[in-house]
Amino acid sequence: MSYDNNNVFAKILRGELPCIRVYEDEQTLAFMDIMPQSEGHTLVVPKEAAATLLDISPAMLAATIQVTQRVAKAVKQVTGAPGLLIAQFNGAEAGQTVPHLHFHIIPRRGGESLRHHASETADMAQLQALAEKIKAALI
Amino acid sequence: MSYDNNNVFAKILRGELPCIRVYEDEQTLAFMDIMPQSEGHTLVVPKEAAATLLDISPAMLAATIQVTQRVAKAVKQVTGAPGLLIAQFNGAEAGQTVPHLHFHIIPRRGGESLRHHASETADMAQLQALAEKIKAALI
Repeated sequence: MSYDNNNVFAKILRGELPCIRVYEDEQTLAFMDIMPQSEGHTLVVPKEAAATLLDISPAMLAATIQVTQRVAKAVKQVTGAPGLLIAQFNGAEAGQTVPHLHFHIIPRRGGESLRHHASETADMAQLQALAEKIKAALI
Repeated sequence: MSYDNNNVFAKILRGELPCIRVYEDEQTLAFMDIMPQSEGHTLVVPKEAAATLLDISPAMLAATIQVTQRVAKAVKQVTGAPGLLIAQFNGAEAGQTVPHLHFHIIPRRGGESLRHHASETADMAQLQALAEKIKAALI
């Protein structure tokens, strides 16, 4: 998959589109999925222009998974969800919709089915409040 | 999730159970899932005794995702699958069945549904042949 500089995450990284941020450093950005598959669904992206796991530099990949771990701990603490799914899709056939590498952190709770991805936009005020809690829980 | 030294991946890492290996170094082991959800389904585990993503040391996590990347490239090359799903389950509620952190590399092809996990054991000779090709493709 070739890299498209106009994909939505590239625009978020350039500040051309807003996001509900939970963490940012020189290499990565984490923000709330605005069409969450479950409450607390968060995304972590590298700042490198990489479409998939196959394209990214190993060093940047390491930074991205380490931030995913930190954010996942905070998401778990805040949501109280007993399960966490980490998913990363490469290629349309695997379900990738935005051609910029991203890790999904998706809380899982017993008996709760996941909503279809990109099916319903969350309430932005609620999402912002949740993001503030996750930020506060980050260590 | 607490760590159980008798989980099946701990036994594989100690050599008490066999596996169809595609890669091994001081920190990680990669092997074929014997109940693949699609052809080429491969697992990558750290040698650290960590039940989930939340428990592992950041350095070992980085090594594990970097090996996942290398193996994923080889799996894609060998299988020719256009899509690759990377999945990692934490907690029974998220679908984790073995309490030792593992990344799934699952080839995805257009129009092909995933088999349910752990539903059907693969032909071991075919799996071994596939593993040999993946080993040869590793760079």
